[in-house]
Amino acid sequence: MIVETQFVRFDSLTLDSGVTLAPVDVAYETYGELNRDKSNAILILHAFSGDAHAAGISGDGGKPGWWDNMIGPGKGFDTDRYFVLCANVLGGCRGTSGPSSIDPETGCPFAMRFPVITIPDMVRLQKMLIDRLNIRRLLAVAGGSMGGMQALEWAVAYPEAVACAMPIAATARHSAQQIAFNEVGRQAIMADPDWNEGNYYGSKPPARGLAVARMVGHITYMSDDSMREKFGRRFRNGESNVNFSNVFEVESYLRYRGSQFVDRFDANSYLYITKAMDFFDLGERWGGLHAALERTHARFLVLSFTSDWLYPTYQSLEIVNALRGRNRDVAFCELPSNYGHDAFLVDVAEQTELVRGFLASTYEKVKAA
Amino acid sequence: MIVETQFVRFDSLTLDSGVTLAPVDVAYETYGELNRDKSNAILILHAFSGDAHAAGISGDGGKPGWWDNMIGPGKGFDTDRYFVLCANVLGGCRGTSGPSSIDPETGCPFAMRFPVITIPDMVRLQKMLIDRLNIRRLLAVAGGSMGGMQALEWAVAYPEAVACAMPIAATARHSAQQIAFNEVGRQAIMADPDWNEGNYYGSKPPARGLAVARMVGHITYMSDDSMREKFGRRFRNGESNVNFSNVFEVESYLRYRGSQFVDRFDANSYLYITKAMDFFDLGERWGGLHAALERTHARFLVLSFTSDWLYPTYQSLEIVNALRGRNRDVAFCELPSNYGHDAFLVDVAEQTELVRGFLASTYEKVKAA
Repeated sequence: MIVETQFVRFDSLTLDSGVTLAPVDVAYETYGELNRDKSNAILILHAFSGDAHAAGISGDGGKPGWWDNMIGPGKGFDTDRYFVLCANVLGGCRGTSGPSSIDPETGCPFAMRFPVITIPDMVRLQKMLIDRLNIRRLLAVAGGSMGGMQALEWAVAYPEAVACAMPIAATARHSAQQIAFNEVGRQAIMADPDWNEGNYYGSKPPARGLAVARMVGHITYMSDDSMREKFGRRFRNGESNVNFSNVFEVESYLRYRGSQFVDRFDANSYLYITKAMDFFDLGERWGGLHAALERTHARFLVLSFTSDWLYPTYQSLEIVNALRGRNRDVAFCELPSNYGHDAFLVDVAEQTELVRGFLASTYEKVKAA
Repeated sequence: MIVETQFVRFDSLTLDSGVTLAPVDVAYETYGELNRDKSNAILILHAFSGDAHAAGISGDGGKPGWWDNMIGPGKGFDTDRYFVLCANVLGGCRGTSGPSSIDPETGCPFAMRFPVITIPDMVRLQKMLIDRLNIRRLLAVAGGSMGGMQALEWAVAYPEAVACAMPIAATARHSAQQIAFNEVGRQAIMADPDWNEGNYYGSKPPARGLAVARMVGHITYMSDDSMREKFGRRFRNGESNVNFSNVFEVESYLRYRGSQFVDRFDANSYLYITKAMDFFDLGERWGGLHAALERTHARFLVLSFTSDWLYPTYQSLEIVNALRGRNRDVAFCELPSNYGHDAFLVDVAEQTELVRGFLASTYEKVKAA
């Protein structure tokens, strides 16, 4: 399945900050066919460092999508039955407007003059895309991590436009610890002189700072167990003599993943998107989490993973308990996995069955209504 | 109790790497009185960023020691009964030889020409200090975190010289995750251009890199719960409007602690000491953990804390199980605490009772023998 990223431009978007961004570009991909009554559309929402290329093989580069094991013919999000979309988030660096986009007022990249964005801003832009495609109601909104935060925001902000929502390994708001890990990443980037207050486009990006930020991220995405299984205390060169050049495999892996990240991600996008995650508080504008979730009409499938210590199960349970408290239709599963937060991306056997079943029953209800 | 740091110089120390360091300075403090038969001496071993100033009020600056709530008249380590010592570790930057010390061959600081050091090297130097003081056998070796790793090494390397050992919130070897967190700190320092391959003495130290490293450290020392209790999602200025200058309290705290650390810690010491921790594997030179611990004659008190996710209880249990497997005298307690790894420093009520009782019974046995 070779896929091409598509692009659409909107005249303007007014942000939570009050600033109007104009114009606004969105990069998105679609998989499968939209049916006649447009009742089979699923919006996939990507996590922090994801992009629009969720599934299939990229026509530009040949890379598989970041959730290709979940989206495709016969998979959890079955493209033989459903029309699946994924768009790069606002603030991103993979085709949707973000700090690396050209500011029409100056003809130069926005850099840190890009307005501050929020998760609700991201979702508002996605709604504009869905409207443009003349889809009145989505069969599902689904995503892991920050994608799950967007799925929650969708269900609350546009209750009539969502038949079911699947927040996976997500939270209704970041804890102090989650904010702290993001802040370390931001400080690592801003400590790099090449960051230059954000003005590095056309010159050297803050590669070392961004790499350190990504290393911290990777540790939090894995579990103690999965790191032990994958690396243990093995040395890269097999020796155990004590000197600085003797590198543990886990060190080598983190350095590689850190340096690799620089090629595909913009440091300023890192700052804006992590800040949007930290500011997100689902209940804030509705008088609390319970009141926010009372607005929803969607069915919910909430998933968490046993070894995910970055988005622990208690955060999913806060959402589930608030939904149950308002008599909403919610199914919850804590799935066993050793993969930590990465589980929603890699350990997908049980997740696939749950998503498949929940989509099928929601689709039955939608068609019967 | 005003205390002064004392200094002693040794001619030389041969390291695990084969390199001989000459001369070697050691900074240490003592509290209480050594009794006539020198049977009441306790060696306190400090954690990664600690120093010789474990207790009392510093004559130079007026600061209380880092374990002042555990060491003093009537406290867990009761200086009315015991003679307590603490020395800055080899590789440190608080009076004991380390990378910031002058290399007699060049007349300049060693910087990265300082030889690689190990936890056993640190312990070998402490043994030279104990010998110099004519103490044949320590009543106890005790410490938390890296201090606990040294306590374990003491009991294995010098079985005749230790009556009891108290490794607290410690491990017999670092896991991949522990190595990974240390590696992020090292990379943050080395990414700072001011690090300059370690040659920053006399000019600007790598303050930003060291601050980022310290921020990561602080997150791992606290628990999710303790961060929630201490900071929650509160903003520094009480407002919740969305912009980059609006800082969460947890961000402000981490930035402050990071910047403050630069004034009291040397970045190259950070590299050497974390590397020593990562390389440490108690069983490695003895044919495994069980064989290593079979060498010991000490009684053991092993403590861990429920919310410590950096040095989790399972690592203490590995030590306890290996000791029990070789029929050694070991008491183990997992103490309830919300403070994470920091618990051994701050949540000391139960710890105090356990240490007091264990020391008293060990002292009885020593005097009866």
